[in-house]
Amino acid sequence: LARIAVDAMGGDHAPQAPIAGALLALAELPAQHHIQLIGRSAPVTAELDALLSDEFAAYAPHRSRISIVDAPDVIEMTDKPTVALRGKQQSSMVIGLRRVVEGLADGFISAGNTGAQMAASTVLLKLHPGLTRPAIGTIFPTARQPVLMLDAGANVDCSAEELVQFARIGDVYARHLLGRTSPAVGLLSIGEEAEKGNAVVKEAHQLLRKADLNFIGNIEGRDIPNGECEGSPLDVIVCDGFVGNVLLKFYESVAPMLIGMVARSAGLDADTVTRSLKHLDVDEYGGAPLLGVRGVSIISHGSSSPRALKNAIRMAVTASESGMNEEIGRRLSAAASHTA
Amino acid sequence: LARIAVDAMGGDHAPQAPIAGALLALAELPAQHHIQLIGRSAPVTAELDALLSDEFAAYAPHRSRISIVDAPDVIEMTDKPTVALRGKQQSSMVIGLRRVVEGLADGFISAGNTGAQMAASTVLLKLHPGLTRPAIGTIFPTARQPVLMLDAGANVDCSAEELVQFARIGDVYARHLLGRTSPAVGLLSIGEEAEKGNAVVKEAHQLLRKADLNFIGNIEGRDIPNGECEGSPLDVIVCDGFVGNVLLKFYESVAPMLIGMVARSAGLDADTVTRSLKHLDVDEYGGAPLLGVRGVSIISHGSSSPRALKNAIRMAVTASESGMNEEIGRRLSAAASHTA
Repeated sequence: LARIAVDAMGGDHAPQAPIAGALLALAELPAQHHIQLIGRSAPVTAELDALLSDEFAAYAPHRSRISIVDAPDVIEMTDKPTVALRGKQQSSMVIGLRRVVEGLADGFISAGNTGAQMAASTVLLKLHPGLTRPAIGTIFPTARQPVLMLDAGANVDCSAEELVQFARIGDVYARHLLGRTSPAVGLLSIGEEAEKGNAVVKEAHQLLRKADLNFIGNIEGRDIPNGECEGSPLDVIVCDGFVGNVLLKFYESVAPMLIGMVARSAGLDADTVTRSLKHLDVDEYGGAPLLGVRGVSIISHGSSSPRALKNAIRMAVTASESGMNEEIGRRLSAAASHTA
Repeated sequence: LARIAVDAMGGDHAPQAPIAGALLALAELPAQHHIQLIGRSAPVTAELDALLSDEFAAYAPHRSRISIVDAPDVIEMTDKPTVALRGKQQSSMVIGLRRVVEGLADGFISAGNTGAQMAASTVLLKLHPGLTRPAIGTIFPTARQPVLMLDAGANVDCSAEELVQFARIGDVYARHLLGRTSPAVGLLSIGEEAEKGNAVVKEAHQLLRKADLNFIGNIEGRDIPNGECEGSPLDVIVCDGFVGNVLLKFYESVAPMLIGMVARSAGLDADTVTRSLKHLDVDEYGGAPLLGVRGVSIISHGSSSPRALKNAIRMAVTASESGMNEEIGRRLSAAASHTA
């Protein structure tokens, strides 16, 4: 049984998209799973009723698996994270995460203000010992299997030790959420050789060689789209949050640009072409779990569709049931006692 | 009049590709321009004769504009740069660059060992005062005009002051080689706001605001493929060589991956589609000038085609005639005296 708290006020299409996503998720999830919609109860109830009486009429049997939790404050996308956190204690973000802390929910998902979600998750769920910040793991579609890259933007100035922590966290994520056994971990650099890279990466390379991980060495930018390095599949890419964020945003933008160019040149409709490329379906994962916090907090893109949010809710269920966060805690503390 | 020294031994397809590139270039360049093929004279002469008696027979009139300069040593792609430089003084790389130093050639181009070319250019041509290393500027195709990104891999651990130097160098490059007036310079970061970025980027942002440049602020990964930031065209992207190298290699790999996917899904031939996308033609520039050295040294990809090398030779002519390097020297020394 998993009870997932969904931020009904978060994202560009709230409350419609999160509520529709919740209905889609309930239809796919076994009957024991429940969803808590967190938000201003009047508009949330009205939107839920509207959807169930029209487009989502067939989903009416799932209504009893939804509860609505009132949260009068709303955090805007433009709010400063720390200010929002202090000033809006009755927001869907704070109330939703507090339910996880209190054991009233097994996970939280939001398409709202990412900075606020990171700050609130860190303060409320707390970090595993030894971490200074949570990390964001993001899935890159590749020509082969999807690859996890972390950090995607939470930690911009990283030490070598932090990059090693990302590798450990990514290893657990790849096992629990991607079903990989013995995940291949690559360190993003500018050449294969151990002596290539900036100062932090060169130091991290040496530490990773001694870590209890399937470390395959440095990988380069060119290996990412192929999802492999020298013919071997890649599961986890480790980099600091500056490089990761630049790459993620570049990828999100270059794909539609290139697809549009090819489609125009071939006289095809770009949207039709995009839909035909299942490999590149960004809705498939729908969210990125915040990694390193002691509880499930899934970050979704502000522009998420109901289908993306449905998949994010499913991810929250899997993350909760698999015990991924507890395993991350065990791995980090085992590594710390080993080093000490 | 420009006399360009071409490394006939450099690259995966040497000596055929550089010699064919030289012939293609001479046919396009005015008659006063000459090319010096630097390499082992026996195989170079044999290859030149073979091309002129067969595929390139129509280029025979340009034979008199080519001289062959013997260079018995060959630097391999796998040679360590500093070792190659010390041990192979009679290589095409060293002899070609020495001709530039001695005023016997106006520029040098090579598709050979990039590390060796950087090291040899730095030692022989020397850097403009105030620089610690040369930078590599690379051209990114975008949905709009091509954009210059630097550094693409020469400087991995950069100070804020070095990023500002890249901005000044890039400004001159964009004016002289891309024909941009008042080039728009963006600083690659993870958010538009001045306070977003890693420690070095945040410091560079403040320095760039005070510099005598058309600094448009931070740009993000998503702006690069569009070639614009908030609707305004982008000319120069400044980043450290670690981020730049990762992005460059990612771009070189993601484009064929995506084009191949779209082509397969639409039942088209990937090569035909690629050829139809003139925007993405990497041969169009053919090379990247090494920036910050006191002389023209153009780096071409090891896999360069004759057409790419032809364009690299044309770039060497333009760089030499435009006085770009002298202007870079003036700009850097003006900035230094202004700061001092």
